[in-house]
Amino acid sequence: MKRFLLLLLWGLLAAATLSAQVSRYVNPMIGTAGMGHCFPGACAPFGAVQLSPDTDTIPHNINGKYQPRAYAYCAGYQYEDNTIVGFSHTHLSGTGHSDLGDILIMPQTGALQLTPGTKEDPDSGYRQRFSHDTEHAEPGYYEVTLADSGVRARLTATQRVGVHQYTFPKGSPQRLVVDLLHGIYNYDGKVLWSSLRVVSDTLVVGFRITDGWARFNQTYFAISFSKPIVNYGYADRRQPDYRGFWRKFDLHHNFPDIAGRDVTAYFEFDAEAPELEVKVALSGVSTEGAQKNLAAEAAGKSFDTIRLETAAAWEKELGVVEIEGTDDQKASFYTALYHTMINPSVYMDVDGCYRGIDGGVHQAEGFTNYTIFSLWDTYRAEHPLLGLLKPGRNTDMVRSMLAHWRQNPVGMLPVWSLQGNEGWCMTGYHAVSVVADALVKGAAINPEEALAAMVATANCPYLPTLQDYIRCSYAPFDADATAASNTLEYAYDDWCIAQAALYTGRKDIAEEFGRRALNYRNTFDPASGFATPRYRDGRFKPDLDPLQTYGEGFIEGNSWNFSFHVPQDPEGLMACMGGEKVFRERLDALFEMELPERYYADNEDITADCLIGGYVHGNEPSHHVPYLYAWTTQPWKTQDRIRTILDRMYRNDIRGLGGNDDCGQMSAWYVFSAMGFYPVAPGSDRYVIGAPYLPYVKVTLESGKTLEIKAPGVSDSKRYIRRIRLNGQPLRRRYLTHEELTGGCMLEFEMDSRPNKRL
Amino acid sequence: MKRFLLLLLWGLLAAATLSAQVSRYVNPMIGTAGMGHCFPGACAPFGAVQLSPDTDTIPHNINGKYQPRAYAYCAGYQYEDNTIVGFSHTHLSGTGHSDLGDILIMPQTGALQLTPGTKEDPDSGYRQRFSHDTEHAEPGYYEVTLADSGVRARLTATQRVGVHQYTFPKGSPQRLVVDLLHGIYNYDGKVLWSSLRVVSDTLVVGFRITDGWARFNQTYFAISFSKPIVNYGYADRRQPDYRGFWRKFDLHHNFPDIAGRDVTAYFEFDAEAPELEVKVALSGVSTEGAQKNLAAEAAGKSFDTIRLETAAAWEKELGVVEIEGTDDQKASFYTALYHTMINPSVYMDVDGCYRGIDGGVHQAEGFTNYTIFSLWDTYRAEHPLLGLLKPGRNTDMVRSMLAHWRQNPVGMLPVWSLQGNEGWCMTGYHAVSVVADALVKGAAINPEEALAAMVATANCPYLPTLQDYIRCSYAPFDADATAASNTLEYAYDDWCIAQAALYTGRKDIAEEFGRRALNYRNTFDPASGFATPRYRDGRFKPDLDPLQTYGEGFIEGNSWNFSFHVPQDPEGLMACMGGEKVFRERLDALFEMELPERYYADNEDITADCLIGGYVHGNEPSHHVPYLYAWTTQPWKTQDRIRTILDRMYRNDIRGLGGNDDCGQMSAWYVFSAMGFYPVAPGSDRYVIGAPYLPYVKVTLESGKTLEIKAPGVSDSKRYIRRIRLNGQPLRRRYLTHEELTGGCMLEFEMDSRPNKRL
Repeated sequence: MKRFLLLLLWGLLAAATLSAQVSRYVNPMIGTAGMGHCFPGACAPFGAVQLSPDTDTIPHNINGKYQPRAYAYCAGYQYEDNTIVGFSHTHLSGTGHSDLGDILIMPQTGALQLTPGTKEDPDSGYRQRFSHDTEHAEPGYYEVTLADSGVRARLTATQRVGVHQYTFPKGSPQRLVVDLLHGIYNYDGKVLWSSLRVVSDTLVVGFRITDGWARFNQTYFAISFSKPIVNYGYADRRQPDYRGFWRKFDLHHNFPDIAGRDVTAYFEFDAEAPELEVKVALSGVSTEGAQKNLAAEAAGKSFDTIRLETAAAWEKELGVVEIEGTDDQKASFYTALYHTMINPSVYMDVDGCYRGIDGGVHQAEGFTNYTIFSLWDTYRAEHPLLGLLKPGRNTDMVRSMLAHWRQNPVGMLPVWSLQGNEGWCMTGYHAVSVVADALVKGAAINPEEALAAMVATANCPYLPTLQDYIRCSYAPFDADATAASNTLEYAYDDWCIAQAALYTGRKDIAEEFGRRALNYRNTFDPASGFATPRYRDGRFKPDLDPLQTYGEGFIEGNSWNFSFHVPQDPEGLMACMGGEKVFRERLDALFEMELPERYYADNEDITADCLIGGYVHGNEPSHHVPYLYAWTTQPWKTQDRIRTILDRMYRNDIRGLGGNDDCGQMSAWYVFSAMGFYPVAPGSDRYVIGAPYLPYVKVTLESGKTLEIKAPGVSDSKRYIRRIRLNGQPLRRRYLTHEELTGGCMLEFEMDSRPNKRL
Repeated sequence: MKRFLLLLLWGLLAAATLSAQVSRYVNPMIGTAGMGHCFPGACAPFGAVQLSPDTDTIPHNINGKYQPRAYAYCAGYQYEDNTIVGFSHTHLSGTGHSDLGDILIMPQTGALQLTPGTKEDPDSGYRQRFSHDTEHAEPGYYEVTLADSGVRARLTATQRVGVHQYTFPKGSPQRLVVDLLHGIYNYDGKVLWSSLRVVSDTLVVGFRITDGWARFNQTYFAISFSKPIVNYGYADRRQPDYRGFWRKFDLHHNFPDIAGRDVTAYFEFDAEAPELEVKVALSGVSTEGAQKNLAAEAAGKSFDTIRLETAAAWEKELGVVEIEGTDDQKASFYTALYHTMINPSVYMDVDGCYRGIDGGVHQAEGFTNYTIFSLWDTYRAEHPLLGLLKPGRNTDMVRSMLAHWRQNPVGMLPVWSLQGNEGWCMTGYHAVSVVADALVKGAAINPEEALAAMVATANCPYLPTLQDYIRCSYAPFDADATAASNTLEYAYDDWCIAQAALYTGRKDIAEEFGRRALNYRNTFDPASGFATPRYRDGRFKPDLDPLQTYGEGFIEGNSWNFSFHVPQDPEGLMACMGGEKVFRERLDALFEMELPERYYADNEDITADCLIGGYVHGNEPSHHVPYLYAWTTQPWKTQDRIRTILDRMYRNDIRGLGGNDDCGQMSAWYVFSAMGFYPVAPGSDRYVIGAPYLPYVKVTLESGKTLEIKAPGVSDSKRYIRRIRLNGQPLRRRYLTHEELTGGCMLEFEMDSRPNKRL
């Protein structure tokens, strides 16, 4: 019987390997060094669990003072480190702000150590040295050998359950450390409370509540072990005992009700069999929810079964795109596609219960609830890409945003949704872009509610700078340090609302927000043609340095880049700058200038790597800029710039990402641009044509229809488009519509080494 | 129409006043000075809300160092104080350990002040002076005038909603302070988190989580105001801003999503109408639960309507006992009866959801869930009294204890159940006494589950001292500082289990625990006949000081008192002491000795007031002792002692309680003893006859049957019983059975000024 099961498993494995036609190209190590802020660990597509090694414990702040080195650890992992602290269950993918790292587990064989120790002296704690030679990562799977103990660690995950398999050296003691104090964005006091209850000798449940970037983040868990706990205990460095004046028991050893503000527990197991499997289910709702998730997704399944199931899930998600190209191109493409499917993440138990922004528990009726909306980034390409490839999921994400709005005491759609919290990170109210984009592309959302949510968000009375913007028709620099970029972003968002209002037949709202959409003009200084912060009295900031990112009225961008941030109205923008020629020459200059180092030397986000002239691809405000040539007399320049960016900013290398991946936005830019088009202004149904990067791309849409893109012979030298055919007919436009792309579509590009200047 | 409503209200008020036949005798000020630890505020019978003034803010500890003055503030109020800090919503009644004081509200008219200030300089904060002349308290109602603002404050409550009515001086500004940092058993760090969301201009919801004596206490609330909030804001002394690196808004003024670790908020209202009503609903489950409670119990009702309804509820609960006596006797009796119906308290939302000891939310199926089980105290008389007068409630309390057991990772019935937490306060596992007592008296609980819970509790593997007790047949003093009293208490509890096992036909368990019930013998030193702590090797502590409370192996009692703690086997106890004569003379000596002051000078709990000889009525272990004469040749001495205690330890005075009321235990002793009998050994169905205190008592039982006790002419001089008739027949026994008392019962006592020594 056992032999039969083994054979069955072999069969499954073989089938999975054969069918892993595309996911085998994914290299989760891309972006794990430097600025990528990607994690190499295991997760299911859009899963709530991201089980991954953390390689250091830099606190985010010490006594309130920010520690700059913490920035590198947004995803917990830096390739250059040579120790692993442990494996924690939640990670943000590619962000520039950090949090999570919940519920760290680490195997241990020697003396009991319940503090992590230091990178410099790993023996001082439970962390262990490791070599990248022993490390392997693929979608849904990660493995490494912990050098100090010799334990082989293998990780996989379902959507809501992290699964660990530890193989201990024969005969060595087997202990697991469960550290509820560890975290990313950690600081003294982040953990408000943690609790751990030993329900049986193979089941432990608990929770921890953290006051991190997510202000009040409740992470419940249920942990099951493949063999009985023999002995356990914990240390609490802050509060050494239970309250109550009578000490009845030894709370710290084999006492099943553990709680405190910094609990690090341990569990010991019989050493006879070398393997120990651990399943850690998470829930934002309750320990009961975590137990339901465990039962539904992982109970009764072996590590290898779950690994295979998750591999199959990835193959299914990634397999909707087939491409031709070099192995490196395939690695870059499928890794990018993989990175677009980590965040947003499911935030709901298997029974549909989830924790809302109001702190309450809600039942998702007819949708899957998602969180981790890094909207300042992801409205640009991540959500439009999901809207094209995974419209079902994208519609549920919009529904999640509407639920957030309904439950939000502040009455806004999310700005940065993070585990039932509002992170308030970055600017604008770009959820309206995602909602409008989904709406105008036909997503099945309630249009009245969507419009109500957008209008309420755009008029939120609690944001004085927004009210100033409404009053002045621009954000005044006196009151708002990032006034100029805010005006540009608000105006674009307002245009999205106007589009949605037009779509739903609300002319009154379309008119109001159509007017507001033109507010961008009010921040352009006619004297310079540069977006310039403006004071309440109407004066522009007199001494603007358009190359300077800080203190000049912009966020994550300088005026040179941000002045192009009028995706909704490039013609109007040209007028602000002084006409097509100035506009076009300004684009050229942006890509060709030499930016003095002083402008980026102090910037955590920008290195010389991620610059092309003065164009900063690692920060999102420029992402649509290379496509703006489409509005000029020299559209072929887009074709050139795009390929340069694809080549230079995305490489099959640990340092392969030219900036934070930002929850898939950098990667979604890659996927769109490699296909040959890009949603310059989400909220419209148009995609501006760039140039295909690969000779062949075929997308199988959710509807079953296909989108094929052929560009035979395309290469770095043959980067220009000579001719385009859409479904066999010559195409002379510079854009494609959503209907065209989704209606069953064959795009044929004839490529050339020189631009076709008459196209 | 308005006139009609007013008339209707007048009618209701008149009816209520007329019908307040017994509750008008209740004086909630009894026990609000000195050691009573009673609160004077408003609550419904067994209500989850106890809305009461707190008169100081002594921290429980400063940097971990216990502040002895905090002890006086277990219920938040000390009569001698001349300031009120504010009105908070949860209070323990009469305990010697403290916690709660959740959600403090205080009206304010002058400059904004968000700290409480000091008793010495009330103007330094929001606290205000008051005079007792302006104070009035009755069941479910409290009022006072705050001298500094001139605001008249009136409080009432439903089971789950505290209702405030503030009348501001004409034209003065109207502001309420809502302090989420205030608390009893407060210390820096007690509040783990608090949150306050302004849902509309008349509704605020939120929660706070505290790490007090209740280790992780979640208090959710919904607050409705009778008129719109005009302006609001808060201060947070610890964490001055939202996380997120971009400051978008003025978080501290009119921003509806307030949270932090020490939030004190304020709300301002239009001053045109002088009155402002506030309803504060509590829930242990969620803000949704609090809103449901608000809707079900208080929404749409005026302050006066709620006051009348709660007055009627009290009248109904208290009115089951009719008595004759002096006004002071009636005040003492009905105040005692009132105090037996505050704790335990309902801990469940109107929809049946409650927070369990496992941290999860549960649905109570077929019972009302209660908390605040001060079991070391209340197993003695409080629960037996409820079992007699309110068997429905007492059965639900037992069901609540069984639910606690099912959900408890430690696998024990509650020791000190406190808001979904285990407080571990005091010794023994006396829940088994309550469960066994209910069982043998016929309560409708599952006998198999009850027995399983009792046996599991008595064998709990997590309490080493209990395991030692099982192993050694006594608790060894080497390992257990209160070994001698623990042995006595465990043995009694074991006897309860044996009784329950006999009742349910489990002879095996009855035999095992019958044996364990005799373990008390093992802690009696045959040389002295005193209970004496004993070492693991069998030796008794050689130099026992039987008058000393501390360090001699006992808790809240010395050997002189505790040696009588064998309620289950007085005959056996006599043998341990050296026979009936020694036993009887020891009883006499206890009541007649002169206890040197050094034995109680340092004791927070004992003053000369609460001593009768060496008998300490304020600490519970002696409560059954005066009844032990029933086993001797001089039972009339019980009659004498009881009346002395009733006269001296219970007076219609703010200092009228000779010790902590201990969640009704002191008061339940009064009620039983005034009726003329007492449950010396709960777990048996017998009540030992003392002597009636009042000429007439009539109890209307839940069944509709009555229990009448007549003692015409009884007085301090005619304190002795000449003859007893039970239902017209002479009674020559010294006890009554539960069946007799509940079967429809007429007890007639013929009283005399001299004892009938042949009775």
